[in-house]
Amino acid sequence: MNAVEVIRHKRDGKALSAEEIAWFVTAYTHGDVTDYQMAAFCMAVVWRGMTREETVALTLAMLHSGEELHARDVLTPVADKHSTGGVGDKVTLAVAPLVAACGLPIAKMSGRGLGHTGGTVDKLESISGLRTELGRDEFLALVKRHGLALSAQSSELAPADGMMYALRDVTATVDSIPLIAASIMSKKLAVGPSHLLLDVKVGSGAFMKTETAARRLARAMVQIGEDAGVRTVAALSSMEQPLGRAVGNALEVAEAVDILRGTGPADVTELCLHETATLLVMAGIADGEPDGHARAERAVRDGSGLAKLAEVVAAQGGDARQIEDTSLLPKAPVRVEIGAPQSGYITAMDAERIGMASVRLGAGRMHKGDPIDPAVGLVLLAKAGDWLDAGAPLVEVHARSEDDVQAIRDGLLGAYTWGDEAPALTPLLLGSVGRESRRTRKSATRS
Amino acid sequence: MNAVEVIRHKRDGKALSAEEIAWFVTAYTHGDVTDYQMAAFCMAVVWRGMTREETVALTLAMLHSGEELHARDVLTPVADKHSTGGVGDKVTLAVAPLVAACGLPIAKMSGRGLGHTGGTVDKLESISGLRTELGRDEFLALVKRHGLALSAQSSELAPADGMMYALRDVTATVDSIPLIAASIMSKKLAVGPSHLLLDVKVGSGAFMKTETAARRLARAMVQIGEDAGVRTVAALSSMEQPLGRAVGNALEVAEAVDILRGTGPADVTELCLHETATLLVMAGIADGEPDGHARAERAVRDGSGLAKLAEVVAAQGGDARQIEDTSLLPKAPVRVEIGAPQSGYITAMDAERIGMASVRLGAGRMHKGDPIDPAVGLVLLAKAGDWLDAGAPLVEVHARSEDDVQAIRDGLLGAYTWGDEAPALTPLLLGSVGRESRRTRKSATRS
Repeated sequence: MNAVEVIRHKRDGKALSAEEIAWFVTAYTHGDVTDYQMAAFCMAVVWRGMTREETVALTLAMLHSGEELHARDVLTPVADKHSTGGVGDKVTLAVAPLVAACGLPIAKMSGRGLGHTGGTVDKLESISGLRTELGRDEFLALVKRHGLALSAQSSELAPADGMMYALRDVTATVDSIPLIAASIMSKKLAVGPSHLLLDVKVGSGAFMKTETAARRLARAMVQIGEDAGVRTVAALSSMEQPLGRAVGNALEVAEAVDILRGTGPADVTELCLHETATLLVMAGIADGEPDGHARAERAVRDGSGLAKLAEVVAAQGGDARQIEDTSLLPKAPVRVEIGAPQSGYITAMDAERIGMASVRLGAGRMHKGDPIDPAVGLVLLAKAGDWLDAGAPLVEVHARSEDDVQAIRDGLLGAYTWGDEAPALTPLLLGSVGRESRRTRKSATRS
Repeated sequence: MNAVEVIRHKRDGKALSAEEIAWFVTAYTHGDVTDYQMAAFCMAVVWRGMTREETVALTLAMLHSGEELHARDVLTPVADKHSTGGVGDKVTLAVAPLVAACGLPIAKMSGRGLGHTGGTVDKLESISGLRTELGRDEFLALVKRHGLALSAQSSELAPADGMMYALRDVTATVDSIPLIAASIMSKKLAVGPSHLLLDVKVGSGAFMKTETAARRLARAMVQIGEDAGVRTVAALSSMEQPLGRAVGNALEVAEAVDILRGTGPADVTELCLHETATLLVMAGIADGEPDGHARAERAVRDGSGLAKLAEVVAAQGGDARQIEDTSLLPKAPVRVEIGAPQSGYITAMDAERIGMASVRLGAGRMHKGDPIDPAVGLVLLAKAGDWLDAGAPLVEVHARSEDDVQAIRDGLLGAYTWGDEAPALTPLLLGSVGRESRRTRKSATRS
């Protein structure tokens, strides 16, 4: 085959064959297709899109570029869960132990944060001693023994994705549903779960700004999962404002512990219970959503979810006392409460700007490899829909210095919109794509 | 500025500012914008196109990437002529000396052939001793002294074009009107003529397959020329079948000499007289097309055109005797006449396939830098519209060996379509874009 022909076919809007796509991606990972040819190809995909068959072929080609863990050959069922990322999204830290505590093993690899969105691995690493760089055997052994492992994404899985993502990032070719879907799904399929729950975030703080785009991404990923034999459901949830109250690494670990104790903020707790229930239904452990929900709540009430998190943290070398007593987590030297600049309802909170304020405090990174500060971040004392009198507590800034607080103050306050009337808020759960269970097939596929 | 932002703007269909384009091209030539970023950018341009202002800005940015000859500062008027390339297109070899003989200096840089289309420099180099690699000073001195210089394109002019073209060639981003227009025009503007005639070829043997596409390219190039202060006309001419009878380097030089003697094939002679007349009218030397045509015919009749070619060949170190007696040009050892495989009218001749048959004989190259054989090629003894009895002379193959003739025979015959009725032939001249003279402004701009 010939790289120019493949690019030309895509450029001209033709559907590529699975063989063409496999050849192109393999040749790229071997250096026979150049970066500039892949860049032109990706721009042609941004332009022309891809059919379901092409997207699946692309995912499999990226998957086959590296090692595969085949987790479901080691134990079945075994689930995975992925969020497309947002601000204050600590859901994995609560859902993974809850699901595991309910008897469904979770083999979870996570990424690091970039830009305004955080990463689960960064959050986990605020726990002293916790190792997230797990080898294949250790990762699978932990899942087998504890029903849960929380690992950083291995660079040996789907290396084509790493290469392509780095290239897309500097060629304005990130924004493409098939490319995003293939990127996420190649990494998920490389772990090899039997069941996969995707949380597709929608809104100002998410990568997908509109529900239409999010639904298209969700559908593309579910189709890939189905075609690869993995039961896959994608839940859509709102990221119009940050999730929960904590934004920042140790702060979010502490909030995840609150959720596991039943004392977390209502919004994020609701989402965690819903996702746990969905996974339990998908795997046939729960008998429908109400039963799944009840099992999730029980794992909160009886402390088994929290115990599972502490057990896995300890198994991965982390200090489990920081889970039992979150005041032992890293603490920022400066805490400043900022009051409401005016009286009124908070009608909107721009999640991306709030995420960026947290990044500027040191909680995130603008460039891959930048160090981050586990202790700093924000605690949102009020959320959209709340009424505040001028000067009432709005947000608590956890910072390295007073100067850092001053530096972000205006940008942070600029994230809030105020009004005289209570706003109509977007519901947190926006529906889902894919079949939760065999029995609910008909109704679920229409959602 | 930021490369990703520039690519993103173009990807999103925004018009770029002249500053953005200049920065991007300059940064690319300096290595600060990478090949993969330029490749993504070019694919975005293939997708989104460019406004007139963007195309002009791109051309000027490419122009400013290298040396400029400013020919019109040395003498005015000074003309240039460019063909987008076809099969059997030896027009420059006849038009340039005719125009110069009529008193309008021509500063002509030409390219080499690639694929099925030939290149003027390759043709010229079939003349023994002729130097086409002329330095800036020598080139301009020749134009000043002889009214004509025939040079290979200097790599110091518009080097960004060379870099971009090499990249576009391997990333399927050649097919874009603004990119093609900017590529051609940056090289023409770098020479700096006062008047420019573009011959845009249309049809199976040309790069532009449809008249619509050719007209768009013509318009884009004329707009660039006008905005850069160069009087520019683009003539559209058919390349449905090869031009004239000779296809191959020395064979085409010999045919150009025939044209200059008034004994050339009717089609290519008509085109040469028309282009000569157009340039003379553009420069104000002829008083309208009929006068231009009469002057061109006179330069044929009195031998001044042929004398000018011989003069310039000698001035560039070539053997002028080969112009006076073309039997002295390189000759192929094998000549085989192929007869018509059937009786009938030739209803069509696929110029691209005929060009490729000539390339396979060794007259052209598939890859840059491949050597070519000046002697080999084809003489088309019949053209579309002719009636032939089975076995009547169809084409004479000039080859290195009998085996070479056999190797191309089927492909060559496959280029012909036969029928029982005389075909309706596309006229050779398809109109023009741009103003030939100030006086004919109104009618000409409507064409």
